[in-house]
Amino acid sequence: MHMAKPNNDSTWIIQEDQFLPERMQYYETIFTLGNGYLGTRGALEENYRLRKPATYIAGLFDAAPNEVTELANAADWVSIELELAGERFDLEKGQVLAYQRRLDLKHGILYRDLRWQSPLGRVTKLSYQRFVSMEDQHLMGIRVAITPENYRGTIKVVSVLNGQATNDGTQHFKAVEECTFGDRGIYLISETYQTHHILAVAASHLVKGKLVNENFFNRRRLIGYEAQFAGETDQTLTFEKLVTIYTSRDLGGTEPKTPAEKTEKVKALTLGENLGAAIQGFDALLAAHVQAWAALWLKADIQIEGDNFAQKAIRFANFHLIQMAPRHDYRVSIAAKGLTGEGYRGHVFWDTEIFILPFFIYTFPEEARNLLLYRHHTLPGALKKAKENGYEGAMYAWESADTGEETTPKFGGLDLKTRKPVRIWCGELEQHISADIPYAVWHYYQATGDWDFLENYGAEIICQTARFWASRVEYDPEDDCYEIKNVIGPDEYSENVNNNYFTNAMAQWTLRKGLAVYALLQEKGKAEELAAKIGLNGEELANWRIIADKMRLRRINELVLLQFDGFLQQKAVDLAAYRHNPDGFFKDFSWEQITSTQVLKQADVIMLLYLLGDQYTKEEKVANWDFYEPKTLHHSSLSPAIHAIFATEIGRSDEAFRYFVDAAEIDLNNKLSNSEAGLHAATQGGIWQAVVNGFGGVRLRDGQLQITPSLPEHWEKISFQLTYQGVPLQITITKEQVELEVLAKAFTPITIGLFDQTVTLIPERASLSVPVPKASLS
Amino acid sequence: MHMAKPNNDSTWIIQEDQFLPERMQYYETIFTLGNGYLGTRGALEENYRLRKPATYIAGLFDAAPNEVTELANAADWVSIELELAGERFDLEKGQVLAYQRRLDLKHGILYRDLRWQSPLGRVTKLSYQRFVSMEDQHLMGIRVAITPENYRGTIKVVSVLNGQATNDGTQHFKAVEECTFGDRGIYLISETYQTHHILAVAASHLVKGKLVNENFFNRRRLIGYEAQFAGETDQTLTFEKLVTIYTSRDLGGTEPKTPAEKTEKVKALTLGENLGAAIQGFDALLAAHVQAWAALWLKADIQIEGDNFAQKAIRFANFHLIQMAPRHDYRVSIAAKGLTGEGYRGHVFWDTEIFILPFFIYTFPEEARNLLLYRHHTLPGALKKAKENGYEGAMYAWESADTGEETTPKFGGLDLKTRKPVRIWCGELEQHISADIPYAVWHYYQATGDWDFLENYGAEIICQTARFWASRVEYDPEDDCYEIKNVIGPDEYSENVNNNYFTNAMAQWTLRKGLAVYALLQEKGKAEELAAKIGLNGEELANWRIIADKMRLRRINELVLLQFDGFLQQKAVDLAAYRHNPDGFFKDFSWEQITSTQVLKQADVIMLLYLLGDQYTKEEKVANWDFYEPKTLHHSSLSPAIHAIFATEIGRSDEAFRYFVDAAEIDLNNKLSNSEAGLHAATQGGIWQAVVNGFGGVRLRDGQLQITPSLPEHWEKISFQLTYQGVPLQITITKEQVELEVLAKAFTPITIGLFDQTVTLIPERASLSVPVPKASLS
Repeated sequence: MHMAKPNNDSTWIIQEDQFLPERMQYYETIFTLGNGYLGTRGALEENYRLRKPATYIAGLFDAAPNEVTELANAADWVSIELELAGERFDLEKGQVLAYQRRLDLKHGILYRDLRWQSPLGRVTKLSYQRFVSMEDQHLMGIRVAITPENYRGTIKVVSVLNGQATNDGTQHFKAVEECTFGDRGIYLISETYQTHHILAVAASHLVKGKLVNENFFNRRRLIGYEAQFAGETDQTLTFEKLVTIYTSRDLGGTEPKTPAEKTEKVKALTLGENLGAAIQGFDALLAAHVQAWAALWLKADIQIEGDNFAQKAIRFANFHLIQMAPRHDYRVSIAAKGLTGEGYRGHVFWDTEIFILPFFIYTFPEEARNLLLYRHHTLPGALKKAKENGYEGAMYAWESADTGEETTPKFGGLDLKTRKPVRIWCGELEQHISADIPYAVWHYYQATGDWDFLENYGAEIICQTARFWASRVEYDPEDDCYEIKNVIGPDEYSENVNNNYFTNAMAQWTLRKGLAVYALLQEKGKAEELAAKIGLNGEELANWRIIADKMRLRRINELVLLQFDGFLQQKAVDLAAYRHNPDGFFKDFSWEQITSTQVLKQADVIMLLYLLGDQYTKEEKVANWDFYEPKTLHHSSLSPAIHAIFATEIGRSDEAFRYFVDAAEIDLNNKLSNSEAGLHAATQGGIWQAVVNGFGGVRLRDGQLQITPSLPEHWEKISFQLTYQGVPLQITITKEQVELEVLAKAFTPITIGLFDQTVTLIPERASLSVPVPKASLS
Repeated sequence: MHMAKPNNDSTWIIQEDQFLPERMQYYETIFTLGNGYLGTRGALEENYRLRKPATYIAGLFDAAPNEVTELANAADWVSIELELAGERFDLEKGQVLAYQRRLDLKHGILYRDLRWQSPLGRVTKLSYQRFVSMEDQHLMGIRVAITPENYRGTIKVVSVLNGQATNDGTQHFKAVEECTFGDRGIYLISETYQTHHILAVAASHLVKGKLVNENFFNRRRLIGYEAQFAGETDQTLTFEKLVTIYTSRDLGGTEPKTPAEKTEKVKALTLGENLGAAIQGFDALLAAHVQAWAALWLKADIQIEGDNFAQKAIRFANFHLIQMAPRHDYRVSIAAKGLTGEGYRGHVFWDTEIFILPFFIYTFPEEARNLLLYRHHTLPGALKKAKENGYEGAMYAWESADTGEETTPKFGGLDLKTRKPVRIWCGELEQHISADIPYAVWHYYQATGDWDFLENYGAEIICQTARFWASRVEYDPEDDCYEIKNVIGPDEYSENVNNNYFTNAMAQWTLRKGLAVYALLQEKGKAEELAAKIGLNGEELANWRIIADKMRLRRINELVLLQFDGFLQQKAVDLAAYRHNPDGFFKDFSWEQITSTQVLKQADVIMLLYLLGDQYTKEEKVANWDFYEPKTLHHSSLSPAIHAIFATEIGRSDEAFRYFVDAAEIDLNNKLSNSEAGLHAATQGGIWQAVVNGFGGVRLRDGQLQITPSLPEHWEKISFQLTYQGVPLQITITKEQVELEVLAKAFTPITIGLFDQTVTLIPERASLSVPVPKASLS
């Protein structure tokens, strides 16, 4: 097959035009290639001082003593060093005559093209291509084409699998075996210390050029292959490295009994597939990969006309969301940084359910189901956590890894004032996760109608979390109401507060949804099974209703919700000086001071008004925005996108677009200066929501899809595909009209709210368009 | 106190005049500073791609699963990054206007002086001083003086304790605590995974300059302090970092019960001493360090006139030998690389007893005793190894670490021909170590007359190893003799051989020495105690005598010893092409081929003729040299120095000097191209032996000190101090005469052979000189 040329449409390209060593780790993050099974940071092939290569394999967790469980950094497989007529290829030396890295989002290929003049004046043209196969999740490849321009001499290429990689100094693997295979193959086997997963990484090498010598070598935890070519002026030689990776987690049900058998099996899979790949060849494997991406983009691409930055941002977001999605495995979910960096150590937060999941619900619902199955799979961990804390039902981990047990670290960075590490209380106190997850379950069910999931998995999650909240509340006899004391809400600057409105309202929602889902099961004659499984009875259900009805929900006034008890008594701070400088804020205030001021890290009440928008009036929404928005520092990457959607909803279009840009710049322009630790996955999900749910105005209102778009002024058109109730729907929005088209021939009729009317699409009338009412353009 | 200026005598200075990044790891090794308690590689303060910082603490061993026990690389304490008016100090950028690193061997100080022009043209003068205190083994310091020459601006100094350091990717420590203390103090506590040693590292900072801001920060396994100064043109500001290190091994007998108590105690020691050090100040601590070195050099310095290279080489050797010596702790010994690198993983070989110990026996006998006590301390490991292998007595580990159990890895590098890792058999087969150790015990006893040591420790070692050999031999009824089959001799190219002459002869020696020592004990009425302790009886002793007398010792002819059975049947190889290119040899021959050729890695028969020189005639020595020397590749750093001594002994002065230079160049000129993995400690001991025992002609002959010098032609004079039988002796050798002077007032008379006469020094005639006989000048 003829290989795709790199895309020339700049909205499909993320580009680095200059080699700046100090920006290296940032580009490693945003140039991460992945396929849900694994992610490999875009580290350069040759080594540099600041290079931080990493490959994270979904679910390959391990815990070092005294440290929390984390995704173990696997061997560095991208390492290829060049020696050009005796000089080491090093962009920090000599002169870079031309340099460009391009991540082609459409094809999932990372290119590097450059011309380099060595300190001794030798000019070489180098072209790299790298992919992590979307077609075969165990396969990846790098090709480098080397052209000496003004010299001849020995071109040495040294390719290594380097198991010396660590997680910032923590080594998770014991070395098992490093050896050679086949003609030019090397492999490396290791085993995680605590979780005893076997990891095998193999690389074979295909060389095109006048090979004059080759060699293998090993060092500790490292195996290498070296090829020496006779380089001739203007003659291009190519070196291809095909890599395969398997772990014993992939053996699944057929997992053998003894560790030795396990190792042999993983090794056989890895080497076997590698030999097969080498026979197919680089081009064929790359072509299959590009084709797989094409199929994904068919569903996932969103076209925005009139705003190239937004167009690029949404493609970047969707690209990375797809790369993070563990298509293959319901035992894992998406981490806060996806598979792109060590920040938050590969842990899963509410980020997944609340920020990321909507993209999948409407684009790849089977993947959304998979992500929610992870929460069912980890129910035992949540049940255990509840029990350990004296509660009932499912108390989900604030940070979750492989087993669902709590993995939030207890200490973080130094408090600059006290010079002691800050105690992190989220693992104990940030409990709203146990409402966020049932919320996501219901969201998925409403949008997909996947009864099988709700009946067999979702209902259990919802009822067990409802049960948790019922055991969590405290009764206040004085006011005859139920309270939730001592929590952290979404705004993490306020620790150990009572009656966080978000938490109380979401708990109330969960209790009520527990009742509703149980009623649904009863309707379908399926309630008894669940009741028997988890021991649910009428008395308990009646209690849920009482608690939900008497939940304490305090307001500051008729319209404005009280974030938590005593919020108004906290010290007010003028945030003007800190809105774009959270670091300055941390310099001027100790952590203890921060937790006792009226400063919000991120959307809290606003978040609730977004999630449970049906329950609040526009007037209430506006009032809360005006009260809380000026108090918010947006020190969390979760904040801007939600503010963008919410501002759209209340008609504050300018602010909405500003917040959208803020969100889009977090990773694209490293706005929070911490992208080197990994991509902000929730932000990418938030960007999708800002476009589709915000500007596109696609929402579930009382369980029905409602479309009320409100495009930014300069956007001419957006067009995207959604799957709703299993029906694939093309939606095209311009300033003048909204166009709907079902992309299937046979489908069950669907009813959708469009502005203030309701339309139904049936196979006989599978498309329609409706003009935008004048009033909706503000 | 006024600080010592750096020495200007170039024979005391090891110098690096140019910053060549690719030589970085070599200089890190040779610029290692240590004090026996720990060694810190001379890594630069700021980070580079190839920088490999390491601090090894004697006895701080740990083993990762599937890996052999090794010295754990402790936190990187030398790290200091500079930001000069916004530009990171980086010698690979901008322009280095002047650069010099000097290791002052006399004072034990590492200097770095440079002028650097930043990419933006800012010129800064930087002067670094570093020491690892010889006065207080837990203390070390770095001072940097910073002078902006043509600019003003913020000078940022970032000092870090970085616990992310690993042993080539293997992390031996779990993180325990990282925090701040005192005014500007940071500390880091960790614990070895398997051996559960606590390590505490603390740094305090003294700043002189206009401090405008300071900060602390932590990252994973890392804690840092940052100072910002207002830098003014031509004004020097200084930053001093004082570091203290303790481990729970230092708690000794008072070691507390619980891990928490242990941690607290180590922390208290480390922080307490650090606070005290900060009060004393950098200058006072450095002065005390210099004074401690002066006291050591008083005994250890050897002066060579007429050869500056040799003068520098012997000072370099003695400097590093002193730095390696664990004065403080009889539970540890000296590793093959000292405390300078990860090569051989901090393991102790025969290198210590045969190559290194003589320096200590004659210079610091109390330290030699300490080193031998290590072998007594690890007797349980040797007894265990014998038992596990079906033998009796003490079978010492070929590679020994903390417990004396065998720690030789089973596999090494890839065989370039088969592309599989080479099986290392030394741990199983290289058994002569169990004769080398008793040999060293006896050597020490003879030279020092330390009866207490022999009675209480040495005799047990000698008798237990004699017992081992008695159980190790096999009786050949046909020839009525005893054989030792299936060993590796000193020449490691010949694996699994029978009747290695060296091994058999040294075993014979050990058996006889067992009898002799037992007889000595009997004389002094002390034999029964040992006999009871280790269960020795007359029958066993009689058996030793029989075996020793009937040991198989084959010769090729009347004069030439047969290295092992079948040596002559192996393939002869012309070594001419490989003598200075062992890598080429390995490229052309597989390991299996190498082990079946007549090529020696190193001195084997020659080694024996050196150690047991009394037993062989000069004629025999010459014949063996002529037979074996041309077959030796000297691929071992142990080989050249011994050849130098032996060549001197047989009157081959030119070859002797050539081999001496070969030995001296191994580390000084990185002759084996592997000094980056650590210094060749045995070579340094060999250099001392080549000077003192070789050219100086100082030997024990039949138990008596004999001096028969034979200086290289251009050497005018050598002068050194020896301690013999507890009497400090100054020896000065010129071409004309040998001068002896006892440096004590009261001493027991000592008798010494001088050429062919015997002289006795008594307090009334404490010095004498004897002319060099004409005949001895060849």
